[in-house]
Amino acid sequence: VASAVDDLIQLLDLEQIEVNIFRGAQPKEVNLDLQRVFGGQVAGQALVAAARTVEPDRAVHSLHAYFLRPGDVSIPILYDVDHIRDGSSFTTRRVVAIQHGRAIFNLQASFQIEESGFEHALPMPDVPDPETLQSVEQRWIDAGLGLDPPERGVDIRHVEDPIFSDAASPPRFRQHVWIRAKAPLPDDPILHTCALVYASDLTMMDTTLLPHGRSHHGTNVQMASLDHAMWFHRPFRADEWLLYVVQTPSASGARGFAEGKIFDRSGHLVVSVVQEGLIRPRR
Amino acid sequence: VASAVDDLIQLLDLEQIEVNIFRGAQPKEVNLDLQRVFGGQVAGQALVAAARTVEPDRAVHSLHAYFLRPGDVSIPILYDVDHIRDGSSFTTRRVVAIQHGRAIFNLQASFQIEESGFEHALPMPDVPDPETLQSVEQRWIDAGLGLDPPERGVDIRHVEDPIFSDAASPPRFRQHVWIRAKAPLPDDPILHTCALVYASDLTMMDTTLLPHGRSHHGTNVQMASLDHAMWFHRPFRADEWLLYVVQTPSASGARGFAEGKIFDRSGHLVVSVVQEGLIRPRR
Repeated sequence: VASAVDDLIQLLDLEQIEVNIFRGAQPKEVNLDLQRVFGGQVAGQALVAAARTVEPDRAVHSLHAYFLRPGDVSIPILYDVDHIRDGSSFTTRRVVAIQHGRAIFNLQASFQIEESGFEHALPMPDVPDPETLQSVEQRWIDAGLGLDPPERGVDIRHVEDPIFSDAASPPRFRQHVWIRAKAPLPDDPILHTCALVYASDLTMMDTTLLPHGRSHHGTNVQMASLDHAMWFHRPFRADEWLLYVVQTPSASGARGFAEGKIFDRSGHLVVSVVQEGLIRPRR
Repeated sequence: VASAVDDLIQLLDLEQIEVNIFRGAQPKEVNLDLQRVFGGQVAGQALVAAARTVEPDRAVHSLHAYFLRPGDVSIPILYDVDHIRDGSSFTTRRVVAIQHGRAIFNLQASFQIEESGFEHALPMPDVPDPETLQSVEQRWIDAGLGLDPPERGVDIRHVEDPIFSDAASPPRFRQHVWIRAKAPLPDDPILHTCALVYASDLTMMDTTLLPHGRSHHGTNVQMASLDHAMWFHRPFRADEWLLYVVQTPSASGARGFAEGKIFDRSGHLVVSVVQEGLIRPRR
């Protein structure tokens, strides 16, 4: 468990090649069968690269990214940072992730000095505590899925049962999942943010298939994240339990659309997430 | 009325300077008191520039943008388009809007060939028909706001009354607004899309102040759009009535966060919008 978290921390610790150029490693134990890089890894590493070029008194408050091409797990990823704005209150960075001479991912992120002002927030829905719920690993074993879930250093506990929908499932449009890093993380706010960026790519697209009795385990759907956007409303720790509520307002044109809200355990809304992905029925 | 719509159509008809470089004009009757370019104009023009470089069999399905610096209404805006991906199913463009040698706006947009697949959508809320509601112009006059609303070629009819909140208003977190172009638009899907991009910047940030008894009419709040993201789920016409439902899940750090859903008159969910803006209390 600790080693999976160490791997995550190492993934998010980029090598600085030049002032605005960083290199991100691949996981130590690469699953070459997956053949492509996990989207959350690229998004998390890209945000680390952006943050390394920003004064530490400015915190990231939003990011917007597109996944452009599948990442190659057999080589590192280069992150090229562009300083598109250095303003008095806001700093904006663009980051292109590059492999084999081509962009695989493009991120924009905005950072802000600390300010205060109007405060309001959605309330957290009432759900069972994470301690009362089984881990996603146990769920996979119980469901006889016949393969281990990806070991990612993130503890994931689904509120709803079953996790995935099949032809017999009534349509659902929302799911609730508790998540946290499997071991404590160092006290670096950027690391907690980027760890959550990493984890936030895990359950969005599954939600868009819940209404249709399909899941990504089937061989009958081609799935890929298309974009990823996050807004960081309030501080949080990624090694404490966070409730990830995801709903899917729409699917059309072989694309699924999902909106997530992340609450800390005391009920504060800390992050909003929006993602669209390809969910293409295979013939 | 027709001339305001003609102005909008002309604003969205860019001059091509080179293969990937376009120039956008300013409105004929510039309100120099406003001093900065309306965000919806830059977003709409930038998407026109992107679309001009994409094969017409590919339709835009999403965009993500940041507003970086105030636009200068006294000179044109240059749009520089980067072909970051030309894929078999998806095409992605980055567009930087430039004035005085500096980026004022950065957009990414993704286009897709026509595909079909899973279908689901949020239902439209039940609200009064637009014909039963007063125009925003009449509302401003009735409210004694003492100035004309900006003439933008967009007919805007608020469901709720009053439009803006003040110290006596109970907190509200959602509003419903009917919108459409004030006159018919030519049958070009890109024009309808970009006209809606233009209009979609009009009511998002106001919603974030509804819970706080303030509005942008007050001199006590500094407001500016920070980002803008849209997902185009289904085809629509911008010259037919569209219901724009906006809610505000959060405000914090002098920023307001708003989520919009746009339905056509038959109740189809056609577009999702997310925007964060600066809402800084003035001392």
